[in-house]
Amino acid sequence: MKIARPLRRLIEAFEKLPGIGPKSAQRLTYYLLHVPQADLDLFAEGLSSLKKDTVVCSVCKNVSESDPCEICSDVNRDQDTILVVEQPLDILAFEKTGKYYGSYHVLHGAINPLENIGPEEIFIEELLGRVKKKAKSLKEIIIATNPTMEGEATAMYLNKKLKSESEKINVSRLGMGVPTGADLEYSDETTLTQALEGRRQI
Amino acid sequence: MKIARPLRRLIEAFEKLPGIGPKSAQRLTYYLLHVPQADLDLFAEGLSSLKKDTVVCSVCKNVSESDPCEICSDVNRDQDTILVVEQPLDILAFEKTGKYYGSYHVLHGAINPLENIGPEEIFIEELLGRVKKKAKSLKEIIIATNPTMEGEATAMYLNKKLKSESEKINVSRLGMGVPTGADLEYSDETTLTQALEGRRQI
Repeated sequence: MKIARPLRRLIEAFEKLPGIGPKSAQRLTYYLLHVPQADLDLFAEGLSSLKKDTVVCSVCKNVSESDPCEICSDVNRDQDTILVVEQPLDILAFEKTGKYYGSYHVLHGAINPLENIGPEEIFIEELLGRVKKKAKSLKEIIIATNPTMEGEATAMYLNKKLKSESEKINVSRLGMGVPTGADLEYSDETTLTQALEGRRQI
Repeated sequence: MKIARPLRRLIEAFEKLPGIGPKSAQRLTYYLLHVPQADLDLFAEGLSSLKKDTVVCSVCKNVSESDPCEICSDVNRDQDTILVVEQPLDILAFEKTGKYYGSYHVLHGAINPLENIGPEEIFIEELLGRVKKKAKSLKEIIIATNPTMEGEATAMYLNKKLKSESEKINVSRLGMGVPTGADLEYSDETTLTQALEGRRQI
């Protein structure tokens, strides 16, 4: 059936987004028909300026308005501790805890041989460069890649590389175990094994 | 924490959409950072021209590029049968069946006293006008409002109004019962009652 072309075009644009199927795309598009033109224009302006108005921080590779980014240029933050994450969104998650005052490094991915993503495709070289530059003052590198196969492989690779740089570098990996609010009954064996191994005296 | 302003602006725009929470809005926005600028511009253009390039068909009130819309101006369709729906998207659903060859009428809502939507707020008057104009040739009016409280109230109201216009008008309501693929065990009583009442000889 003939959906009006302007509607179809927008439905197709929404469909390309992750997690939005044809039905949701339709629903969103028809919903927007009831939204004031000013809001639509604002949304459109936001989309087309998204990449124009942002840069990748030359230090930590986070997406930012300024270079270096706000965190890298913040003198109140400990620039000698680096927390390594896969994606810019992971930074947000750590910032929300309010418990981390160091700097970050965004890899923009993880090593994934199945998808042809090797160590060169992500910002590992840049991390090693940062580490080399501040070899003296560096306190700790916290590897916070995802607890998935790819994240683990990346963490192992990073650790090896960092240690080959200097044996004295303090490299740590995020603690693993059961998450708050979880039901032990439904926890998988790997998680429970890691929770046991990572047990702490109380 | 400080998300770069261009990102924040887009996250806020996404959050306003139905069914998209703060987390999804973030995920979508960061995803779009990896999309080519040309695609972003196309998306933006689609948004801002959505309402500018469409009109509401003066006959059936569907959203369309032309007035009257493609369906209302199609001589191969039976313009003397009118299927009444709540939303333009409902037309799409019926068109997909490929079994309906008549015309439509979009109410753009349903009577909902709790939200202060009375018969005047939706295109009921316009439907009665259409019916009056083709009183002689009109074959049938199929009321296909949603099987919800609001949809049922609207259907009852419409039926009363149409019958007061002329006792002879052929008004029908969509068949109700168990949907294809449903599990009878989980069907609610109202649906099963209606399925019993609507049983057909085989």
